[in-house]
Amino acid sequence: MKIQNDLVLRAARGEAIERYPVWLMRQAGRILPEYRAVRGSLSGFKELVETPERAAEVTIQPVDILGVDAAIIFSDILVVPEAMGLEYQMIEKKGPWFEKTIRSEEGLKFAQTEFDVEDRLGYVTEAIRITNKELNGRVPLIGFAGAPWTIFCYMTEGHGSKTFSEARKILYTNPTLAHELLSRITKVTIQYLKAQIKAGAHIVQVFDSWAGILGKEQYTEFGLKYMDQIAAAINEVPVTLFAKGAYNSVSDLAALDCNTVGVDWNMQMSEVRAAIGENRTLQGNLDPCVLYSSHQEVERQTNNMLNSFISRRHIVNLGHGVYPDVDPEKVKTFIKTVKSYEIQY
Amino acid sequence: MKIQNDLVLRAARGEAIERYPVWLMRQAGRILPEYRAVRGSLSGFKELVETPERAAEVTIQPVDILGVDAAIIFSDILVVPEAMGLEYQMIEKKGPWFEKTIRSEEGLKFAQTEFDVEDRLGYVTEAIRITNKELNGRVPLIGFAGAPWTIFCYMTEGHGSKTFSEARKILYTNPTLAHELLSRITKVTIQYLKAQIKAGAHIVQVFDSWAGILGKEQYTEFGLKYMDQIAAAINEVPVTLFAKGAYNSVSDLAALDCNTVGVDWNMQMSEVRAAIGENRTLQGNLDPCVLYSSHQEVERQTNNMLNSFISRRHIVNLGHGVYPDVDPEKVKTFIKTVKSYEIQY
Repeated sequence: MKIQNDLVLRAARGEAIERYPVWLMRQAGRILPEYRAVRGSLSGFKELVETPERAAEVTIQPVDILGVDAAIIFSDILVVPEAMGLEYQMIEKKGPWFEKTIRSEEGLKFAQTEFDVEDRLGYVTEAIRITNKELNGRVPLIGFAGAPWTIFCYMTEGHGSKTFSEARKILYTNPTLAHELLSRITKVTIQYLKAQIKAGAHIVQVFDSWAGILGKEQYTEFGLKYMDQIAAAINEVPVTLFAKGAYNSVSDLAALDCNTVGVDWNMQMSEVRAAIGENRTLQGNLDPCVLYSSHQEVERQTNNMLNSFISRRHIVNLGHGVYPDVDPEKVKTFIKTVKSYEIQY
Repeated sequence: MKIQNDLVLRAARGEAIERYPVWLMRQAGRILPEYRAVRGSLSGFKELVETPERAAEVTIQPVDILGVDAAIIFSDILVVPEAMGLEYQMIEKKGPWFEKTIRSEEGLKFAQTEFDVEDRLGYVTEAIRITNKELNGRVPLIGFAGAPWTIFCYMTEGHGSKTFSEARKILYTNPTLAHELLSRITKVTIQYLKAQIKAGAHIVQVFDSWAGILGKEQYTEFGLKYMDQIAAAINEVPVTLFAKGAYNSVSDLAALDCNTVGVDWNMQMSEVRAAIGENRTLQGNLDPCVLYSSHQEVERQTNNMLNSFISRRHIVNLGHGVYPDVDPEKVKTFIKTVKSYEIQY
């Protein structure tokens, strides 16, 4: 099916675009009252993730309500470790919680790779099929997965953390185990992304949320190595890599076989562009907090960001997920500002 | 009183040193069973902070037990907001919790500046006097305070956070309030540091733990501006500025009127040195997780770090506070390795 508004895909490939495309990380989520209504009718976050019809419904909401240039499938990066054998709960106001963790070779029994992803993650691919049917080609659909390093963090630490010291401990005390687990996660992640693409994802993004807690050498060894394997394996659609906080590694990330590199709000777009050149599209990077300001200030800050671009190769986004208590009207102002901005290149 | 081992002071001032000095952030704390014994005999963390004799006791423990080249007064950065009128609790395993927060002009009544710091924070200066008496000049005593931006984060957010979005929201919605509160914190912090120095602190460090959550422009406006005021006001003793995660601002930080700049473990020492030149001492930056490895690996990684130094102007430390579950024997190996390393400059 032909995509009517394919700006995101063209921008990712470095093709001609009439204006910068825009979408928001976490756009399908708590900022929208329509999302909260759906969520409130179910037992919780995981039921929503696992119910394809409802996941599709909240995936499409921001396209209808906010006017974004892409939908991103509503799901969670932690469905992958769960499919591998490590169940988790999503605890309200606390975040994810794994009953078991992997801290020794014995724990690898909870890191299975020999299964059919359609069997265990069919609810995601089904949600993708339903979404595309209902979107009817209006905008592209983004598939996604967590990066191996970030998934490793949760499988070893068991929950969120400021330092992920349990996860990082293993890199020093048992690097062999670390590489084995990272390899397994990578293997499953590639199969999972390919299944999403087969189901209809038009572009995929890999989120390395905890890239920033490693120094450059360790991120090269335990992060980039596996991002590289994923980027090399996915050739069917454009690939976006987002490694939050990986200041030291953004050029190395851009050197991988990807189309787009995500830029967080702490990085300076002009510096990233200078470092990586014109061969990659950059995605980002408005500070999510800007959306707490007045409409006028949102417009001003958005234009400031757009004026800092010195290239056509951009997909506009926030520098991190939108905060749940932001007024959707501010999001609309952000989107409207991007849409009415005239590209100078 | 003459300090017998004044390596830290000489290194801070860029004077000749026989070997690199070494101490650890959070060295007076839960890693030591001797600390846990003292702490266990009291009602909690805050009682320890507020009882000068016991605070002095745990301050000296790492000098006796680990052989560090400096003591750092056992205290908490949040004693400053408390003195200003905003009480907090330290909740076991959760961290600090403020009942009230400042999010409007009305809240400024909890940000008092017109008081005598000796009145409200005399327990800290008393702990400094006792510590120095008991140390008897063996090593210098480090005083410290939180940076205004970090204190602002807690006074507005009310507790720890991954994003500090409530704190950052104010920077966009009410920058006038933000600057007023930051100015007040700065005023009290300068008085507090001067009181510590008067009581006997030989060097002071300002900790900007949450510097890394701001982009460069905002950190310049809301962070560096107040660090600058503090650095300019303190001339009695050497000043160390540590802004964790402020990758984009490390050169600007080094340009302030300070002696030493702290370097976290995600930054590369060689790059920081290249950026700031030879006029400042650098402090850091071994990944705290290295201390989970074998003794041999601790030694190897410590030597790697030392070999990456291309200057004499270093004070060795971790790149963040030592993790509480680290084996003190590993800390000793770290310290021993530094002490036996021969400087090549």
